[in-house]
Parts: sequence; structure tokens; C-alpha cells
Amino acid sequence: MLVVGIDPGTATTGYGFVRDNADGGLDAVEYGIIATPAHESPENRLWMLYTQLKELLLLHRPDSGAVEKLFFQRNVTTALAVGQARGVVLLAMAEAGLVVAEYTPMEIKQAVAGYGGAQKRQVQEMVRALLQLDQIPRPDDAADALAVGICHLHSAHFAKLTQLE
Amino acid sequence: MLVVGIDPGTATTGYGFVRDNADGGLDAVEYGIIATPAHESPENRLWMLYTQLKELLLLHRPDSGAVEKLFFQRNVTTALAVGQARGVVLLAMAEAGLVVAEYTPMEIKQAVAGYGGAQKRQVQEMVRALLQLDQIPRPDDAADALAVGICHLHSAHFAKLTQLE
Repeated sequence: MLVVGIDPGTATTGYGFVRDNADGGLDAVEYGIIATPAHESPENRLWMLYTQLKELLLLHRPDSGAVEKLFFQRNVTTALAVGQARGVVLLAMAEAGLVVAEYTPMEIKQAVAGYGGAQKRQVQEMVRALLQLDQIPRPDDAADALAVGICHLHSAHFAKLTQLE
Repeated sequence: MLVVGIDPGTATTGYGFVRDNADGGLDAVEYGIIATPAHESPENRLWMLYTQLKELLLLHRPDSGAVEKLFFQRNVTTALAVGQARGVVLLAMAEAGLVVAEYTPMEIKQAVAGYGGAQKRQVQEMVRALLQLDQIPRPDDAADALAVGICHLHSAHFAKLTQLE
């Protein structure tokens, strides 16, 4: 199964395509960020994010997708701006036929590092280890998106196991 | 000139297409709301909003568009949800080739009712009068969207007049 994890943001949106391989391990198929220039209008930046994400979804055709559940934002202006980016991300995922799962930051840390209170660095190191990468994936938004993808694969496997019982 | 004003929301998005007519007055070309069912997933509701708005923009082909500037939201969860709806609205407008103007609630009240501190009911009554409608447009979200459209037309005229000086 190939899943995509996405970490939406106004300036930078991280993405990570993760597949479970035949050996029972995980592979990072592709990861990175979509960055949009600050001098563009909000609507043009959303359009750039949307079209680039659509291209990636069309290229890799993931079976399933997930984003981080956000409810902890303190700043209302930031929440509105992140919401706008999140809106076009969810739209692109819906158009790619994906049902979108959402996980809290704690669920993601729990799934990746085995502990919901894990530090950012610990989570990134576990992302590196689980995907057998030489280095911690950069930038942070890409590593975060891969963590969402790993969490989603683990949950999907868990759901499958539960169904089989 | 035909403009569209939009009042984005999670459950209900208001829209109003307003044209300046040959007599120097304003006409409401079409107005209403796009409502999405609460039982659908967030990504499906965003997709419904996006596709219905795209159809309206394709049908009427406005010359210009505007949305309300939001910075007054107290509730962060609401801001995130409204942001998501606003994101796909801005995207649809960008894809329709529109440069999107933003006005604060005070600018809209000022433009429509002549007073930035006007009550909601006063603004709605002025929307009715300026568009020569028999009744106050319903529901509220549609009236709000028409007010954004009227504000944008007034501003566009003002900008034109200033350029000609």
C-alpha cells in the first residue's frame, strides 16, 4: 500500500509518499516540500500549491492519504492562513479519490516514536530509521509529512488486522 | 462591470453577482448560497463547494471578485474551518482568472450603508435598496455576499475615477 502524508502550510507544505515493502519494512517513495513565493497574492499561492500537489498525486497515485489534525493553534490569523492551505490540500486529495484520515500530533508521535510525548528530534530520527534513510529527511516539513504517512500506514495495518480477527 | 462577492463558510457560502447598469444603478444578477451536508467528510464538502462555485463563475464570468477580510475570529477552530472553505473559494476565483480584493467588515459597512459602524439590519436594508429588490435578500450569507460585491463595485469606480484625475 502506498500512502501520502501531508503537512499543509501557507508558505511551505510538506509531503511524503510512503510504501510498505515486501520485507515488512517501509520505503520513502518521494518526499519534499511545495513552497510558494511570498510576493504572490494569496489566491495565486493557493493555486500553485493546489496544482503542484495534484501533479504529485497524479504521478504517484497513492491508495490513501492523511493530514495532521490541527486544533492547537494559538494564533487565529495563522489558523485562518493554515486553514486556507489545508482547504486546497484536502480538495486535491478528494479529487484524487482519497479518503483523508486525520491524526493528532500525539497519535503521530505515538505511532512513529512509540511515545506521544516524544521530542521533534526523536520523531525525526525514528522517521529516518524506519525509512532506512542515511540522513534525517530535510526540511522539517517533509520529515513531518513522512511521519504522518508512517502513522497512517501503521493505523491502516492495525485496522486490517482488527478486521481479520 | 460584473463583480462577484463571496462570503465563505464551512456549512454555507454566500455569493452575490452584482452589475452596474446603464442608469448608474446596481443590479443583482444572481445571489444565493452553496450549502454542503454536515454528514459528508470535510474533503468532500470542500469539493462540493469548489465545484459548485466553479460552475457559477463559469456561467456568469465576472470581471472581478472580492471576499471579506477576516481577522476578527475569536475561535481558533472556527478560523481553521472557515480558512479551509476560504482556501477553495480563493482557488476557484484564481482559476477563473480573477484578482481577488479583500475588504474589512468596516469597509463593507461604510461602502454599503455609509457608516462603518452600521448594524447588520441597516446594511441588509441598504443592500435591498441599492439593488432595487422588494425584500431583503435571504439568507443572511447571500445578503452579506451582495454587500461585499457592492463594496467592491464602489471601490472599483473610485479607483477608476482616481486614475482619470
